[in-house]
Amino acid sequence: MRRLDLGILMLVCGAAVATLGSAESPNERKELDGFERFVSADGALTFDPAAIQDLVHIGSWFVPEGGAAGFHGVYTQRQALEAYRETGVFPDGAVLVKELRAHKRGDYTTGANVASAGGIGQWFLLIKDSGGRFPEHPLWGNGWGWGLFKPDAPSLNLATSYQADCLGCHAPAAQTGWIYVDAYPALHE
Amino acid sequence: MRRLDLGILMLVCGAAVATLGSAESPNERKELDGFERFVSADGALTFDPAAIQDLVHIGSWFVPEGGAAGFHGVYTQRQALEAYRETGVFPDGAVLVKELRAHKRGDYTTGANVASAGGIGQWFLLIKDSGGRFPEHPLWGNGWGWGLFKPDAPSLNLATSYQADCLGCHAPAAQTGWIYVDAYPALHE
Repeated sequence: MRRLDLGILMLVCGAAVATLGSAESPNERKELDGFERFVSADGALTFDPAAIQDLVHIGSWFVPEGGAAGFHGVYTQRQALEAYRETGVFPDGAVLVKELRAHKRGDYTTGANVASAGGIGQWFLLIKDSGGRFPEHPLWGNGWGWGLFKPDAPSLNLATSYQADCLGCHAPAAQTGWIYVDAYPALHE
Repeated sequence: MRRLDLGILMLVCGAAVATLGSAESPNERKELDGFERFVSADGALTFDPAAIQDLVHIGSWFVPEGGAAGFHGVYTQRQALEAYRETGVFPDGAVLVKELRAHKRGDYTTGANVASAGGIGQWFLLIKDSGGRFPEHPLWGNGWGWGLFKPDAPSLNLATSYQADCLGCHAPAAQTGWIYVDAYPALHE
């Protein structure tokens, strides 16, 4: 093949491959390679409820009573799960989402007083930040970016200070990177 | 470009695209377009524990006591979830997995006596079968293929008759295609 034709071939192949890469059918899983979709240039965190379907489920909590009652489902990127399984820590850029849902109870063939999930209450968002991207930002610190979002305004981070709003609940998990990793068996399988 | 070169171009592009399509990095999400990975030519069902990570989580149960105590997480293909949201029924080839996990309880900052998940007990597998692929097979009927698997031998279907082994627990959901769809809020969002 002549050099010119080879050049054209490479260009056309490149275009074909690029087109395939960006073509997104409604049934196609999206890649979630990083945290960029959740973070603006100045470090503000936002949330996209559809993001859950781009993540894998690594575990659930059931809280029977109190203000946090219901199901707490926890999700991360597939890549982050695989990295954790290899290294025992979440990689930089790992995204953790905890989705809180109401619950209802009923008797089923599986048992009495069985709980199942209802509507979404809120989401917690964590972005692993090993290098300290936003050292002055009040929602970035202790190795993570921290966010809290509700369904009526998922782009608004309701947390304003990770130290005041977030650390209290995570303090007992300080020794495992502020995450209750023992509750997520998928990390260890 | 000469016709021969165009032919070569198309062949090479095709090969390049095919190579891209089959190249699988460890961090790449696999597509799960159908049920084929779970069904052999004669209708036998098998299970692959890694399949969970190719599915999306559509809901969880928490059973507090009894033989089925623990978390029951339910998963389907992303495509099946999207089809259900559009049509209100699972499409032919939809895969539903229910993963049963043990649970432990503890007091956390989210509440007292909070349950979190432990090891895997077993998986239930359903393959939507609108047309009746295996009319004589004892594990195919009522619009589904039915399976039960345990971690020590996930390729062995422990159910031998869907009528004897499976329908009893699903009978209360007969009016909704044998699935407790009300317990999976993600289907309706």
